[in-house]
Amino acid sequence: MSTEKILIAETIATWTSYLKRANKLFTDLDATLLEQEILPHRNRMVYIWGHLTAMHDRMLQLLGVAERVHPDFDAVFLTSPDKTQDLPAVEVIQAWWDEVNRRLDEGISQFTATDWIRKHGAVSDEDFAKDPLRNRLAILLTRTNHLAYHLGQAALAPK
Amino acid sequence: MSTEKILIAETIATWTSYLKRANKLFTDLDATLLEQEILPHRNRMVYIWGHLTAMHDRMLQLLGVAERVHPDFDAVFLTSPDKTQDLPAVEVIQAWWDEVNRRLDEGISQFTATDWIRKHGAVSDEDFAKDPLRNRLAILLTRTNHLAYHLGQAALAPK
Repeated sequence: MSTEKILIAETIATWTSYLKRANKLFTDLDATLLEQEILPHRNRMVYIWGHLTAMHDRMLQLLGVAERVHPDFDAVFLTSPDKTQDLPAVEVIQAWWDEVNRRLDEGISQFTATDWIRKHGAVSDEDFAKDPLRNRLAILLTRTNHLAYHLGQAALAPK
Repeated sequence: MSTEKILIAETIATWTSYLKRANKLFTDLDATLLEQEILPHRNRMVYIWGHLTAMHDRMLQLLGVAERVHPDFDAVFLTSPDKTQDLPAVEVIQAWWDEVNRRLDEGISQFTATDWIRKHGAVSDEDFAKDPLRNRLAILLTRTNHLAYHLGQAALAPK
């Protein structure tokens, strides 16, 4: 295996490993547990789940792999804090989460090393010329860490 | 810049970015805030700081860049939960954190792409032959996510 293939394979493996943890954590929760706050006056579990799904939904566009599934939920989970908007039903979040994951997995599995170092969808040609690190792999790296950050919080919620 | 150099540079950039956040978070806390639990009956901030430092101290050996600074603190921060052992003084943790970061930074800055895909210090030649992803870059990736996981928790602590 070439050096670049090894580096990409392990970045994807780390992403997949945290995604599996998230999948197990959130899909195992019943409606009552999803409504629980991590700690008093903080985000509810269901909000964190939606927030992660919205971030990953945006990755579809940033990586250029597929149409977004629910850009209409950005207003609920990305630009508004918890408890200020009506949330979609749990079944809707579950289906959204599954579909986003399916599209991401399908897109990522077809990427070559050259695809990974192409610019991502939120950077201009001009800015990318100045900073070649603003590529698609950077999106995967930062979103894996974002996922880990919120999973650390979710692990503190009452069981 | 070659593809592999770009991939490595952004993995290091992600690590550095979370390390800076951790540095700001912990070194800004006074002794009272360090003694606070993230939430009732959970880890204290000072324990999380020591836990992260111990994990990063082990990286020195896993990456093969330098002698460990305080292997004697593993028993306090890695193999024992909080509130079961006497902790070192805050000044000792601060100096330890700084020295571990200094040695890591110095070691990592000299790594070539070939160094990154060499096996890490906790895998046998035989196991590495079966799974070439068990290399030094995998240590950096997983430790960055570990750091993000605990920073997410630390962000919930009372200010």
